Amino acid sequence: MDNFITLDYGSGGKKTSALISDMILPLLKNEALEELGDGAVIDGAERLVYSTDSFVVSPYFFPGGDIGKLSVCGTVNDISMAGGEPKFLSLGLIIEEGLPVADLQRIIDSIRAAADRAGVKVVTGDTKVVERGRGDGIYINTSGIGFLRTPRLSPRMIREGDAVLVSGTVGDHGTAVMLARNEHLVQADLDSDCAPLNEMALALGKQLGADLRVMRDPTRGGIATTLNEFIEDGRYGIEIMEKDIPVLPAVNMVSEILGLDPYYTACEGRMLAVVDAKAKDRALEILHGFADGTGAAVIGEVTGAHPGKLVIRTPMGGGRIAAKLSGAQLPRIC
Amino acid sequence: MDNFITLDYGSGGKKTSALISDMILPLLKNEALEELGDGAVIDGAERLVYSTDSFVVSPYFFPGGDIGKLSVCGTVNDISMAGGEPKFLSLGLIIEEGLPVADLQRIIDSIRAAADRAGVKVVTGDTKVVERGRGDGIYINTSGIGFLRTPRLSPRMIREGDAVLVSGTVGDHGTAVMLARNEHLVQADLDSDCAPLNEMALALGKQLGADLRVMRDPTRGGIATTLNEFIEDGRYGIEIMEKDIPVLPAVNMVSEILGLDPYYTACEGRMLAVVDAKAKDRALEILHGFADGTGAAVIGEVTGAHPGKLVIRTPMGGGRIAAKLSGAQLPRIC
Repeated sequence: MDNFITLDYGSGGKKTSALISDMILPLLKNEALEELGDGAVIDGAERLVYSTDSFVVSPYFFPGGDIGKLSVCGTVNDISMAGGEPKFLSLGLIIEEGLPVADLQRIIDSIRAAADRAGVKVVTGDTKVVERGRGDGIYINTSGIGFLRTPRLSPRMIREGDAVLVSGTVGDHGTAVMLARNEHLVQADLDSDCAPLNEMALALGKQLGADLRVMRDPTRGGIATTLNEFIEDGRYGIEIMEKDIPVLPAVNMVSEILGLDPYYTACEGRMLAVVDAKAKDRALEILHGFADGTGAAVIGEVTGAHPGKLVIRTPMGGGRIAAKLSGAQLPRIC
Repeated sequence: MDNFITLDYGSGGKKTSALISDMILPLLKNEALEELGDGAVIDGAERLVYSTDSFVVSPYFFPGGDIGKLSVCGTVNDISMAGGEPKFLSLGLIIEEGLPVADLQRIIDSIRAAADRAGVKVVTGDTKVVERGRGDGIYINTSGIGFLRTPRLSPRMIREGDAVLVSGTVGDHGTAVMLARNEHLVQADLDSDCAPLNEMALALGKQLGADLRVMRDPTRGGIATTLNEFIEDGRYGIEIMEKDIPVLPAVNMVSEILGLDPYYTACEGRMLAVVDAKAKDRALEILHGFADGTGAAVIGEVTGAHPGKLVIRTPMGGGRIAAKLSGAQLPRIC
C-alpha cells in the first residue's frame, strides 16, 4: 500500500483489488463478503427492515468517534428505530484522492469495531476515488438489512396522553463535532454520543409490545426536529419540559459560545420513544439497564391542546413553540 | 423549490423535507417509501442477494444516460449477475451545494424511468448536501435487495472447455463518457450501453441451470479486467478471439484518438457469461431474444494451457497476455 490514496485505487483494477484484499477484507472478513461477487447472498426468511444513510461528517475524526463508527451506528440505529434487528450492512466508500492511507486504516478499524459491537456483518461493498478537490477526505454510504421484531411502529400510533422519553443527554454528537471544528475558539471535555442502539431498542420493542408507539434517533435537526416529525399529521401536539431534558454542562457551555441550540443539535447514540403513559416507568427501567441509557428520562407528553405543534415549557411555566429546523444549523454533522 | 441546491437542503429540517416531499416522493412513490421512517419494512421469505455501488460519473449527463439511470442499472445489474431477481433499492444522494435543481429533477426522473423498466422499487433513501468545492454536482449510492433465482454462480464453477460469451458491443459506456468530456477534441455518434440486465440474466439463469457457471457485468476495467477476475484462482486461463469481440466502429475511432483500449473500457449494460460448451448455442439464442442482447457473441473459451492468464488471439494467430487493469485508465467513469 502507498501512503496516500491515488485515483488508481478507484480504477477497478489492481490497486482497487489491493486496497480491498490488503486492508478491507482482513478486517471485515465473512463468508458472504469474501466471495467478492457483485452482490452478497444472505439468508432471510422474515419481514425485512432496510435502510440507507450517507455520511459526510467534517472533520472525519472527532472526539468520541469517526466517520467509520458513525456510518455503522447510523444505519444500525435507523433499522433499530424501525423495529428491526440489524444483521447485514453494505459499505460504499467515496474517497478523495490524497487521503492518507493511515486515516483510511483507522476508519476501517472503527467500522469493524462498531460492527462487532452491534453484531452486524458488512457483506457487500464498493470503493470509488474522486480527484483532489472533488470530495473531502472520505464520504461513506452504508445500507443495512434487519429482520422485523416489533409490531407496527409509526407516528400514526401515537395517542393523547402518551409519554415521551429520551435515552440520554441530547446534542452531544453535534456539539463534539463543532468543537473539533473550532478548537481555536473553545476547549471542552466532550465526546460524541455515537453508539449502536440496537440492543436497547430491541429490548424496548420486545418488552413493551403495542405500548411502544414509535422510536426515532434524533440525528440531523436534533430532538426538536424529530419530535416535530412525530406530530406532522396534525392529530396531536407534544409538550416537553425544559427542566427534564438532560443536557451536559459542556454541551450547554459550548452551545452558548458557538451559538447552537442543543435541542436542534444532532445525537448519534440517543433515541426518542413515545410510549403509552402506563408503560413509561417500565420503559425507563428498560433504558436504564443499558450503558447508553443510564441518562434516560421522561421529558414530556402527547397533548390534544396544540395539534401539530411542539411546545417547550420553561421551569417558570412559560412555553415556546419549537418548529422543525429551518435552514442548516450545522452542515455536515453526520 | 429554489433554482439551486443550498446547504439548507441537507439540514434534515424544512428544506430537506421539501426536497423529499416535492420532488423525490412524487416520482418514486410506493408504500414502503411513503412511511418516511428511517428504515423501510419489506417482505422477504427467500435467500437474498444484496449489493451496493456508489456512482461518481463525470459529467453526470452523458450520451445515452445520466448518473440517475446509471445508479439504478449498476445495482440492478450487480444483483442480477449474482443470480438474484432485484426487487428493492435504497437511494443515497450526496449533492454539492449549487447543483441546479432542474438537473436534480432530470436525474430523479431518470431514476424513476430506470427503476420502472427494471421492475424495482426505491424503498428507502437519504439526502446529504456538501459545500461547494467538496463534491462535483452529485454523487449517488444505491444498494439493492433481490431474491436468489439460480444455483450457485461463481468463478469457482468454471471448467476447462467452457465457452465465454458477451451480450453485446464492448466499451460503449466508457467511450461515451469520455466523448462527453472531450467534445472539443472529437465528435462521434455514440451512446452509452447503460441498461438494466435483470431480465436477460434471469432468463439465462433459469434456462441454463448448472450449465451457467458465472455472469458478471464488465464495468470499471472493462472485459479484460472482469475476465481476469474469473481466472484469479489460477486453475484455468481464458483465451478470447479479437475477431469475435463486438466493438462499434465509433468506439474504435474515439478510442484511437483518445488513447483508450475498448477491452479495458467500462460497459454498463453488457454482461460476460461463462457456460458449459454444450450450452453455448442455447445461451446465445437466449441473449439474442432481448433488445440489449442482439449483439451477443461467443468470444472465447476456458483453457488449461495458461492458468491464471487471459490471452487475446489476433486474427493472424498471434496472442498477447492482457492483465488486469493497472492504474486508472478512466477515473470516474461510473
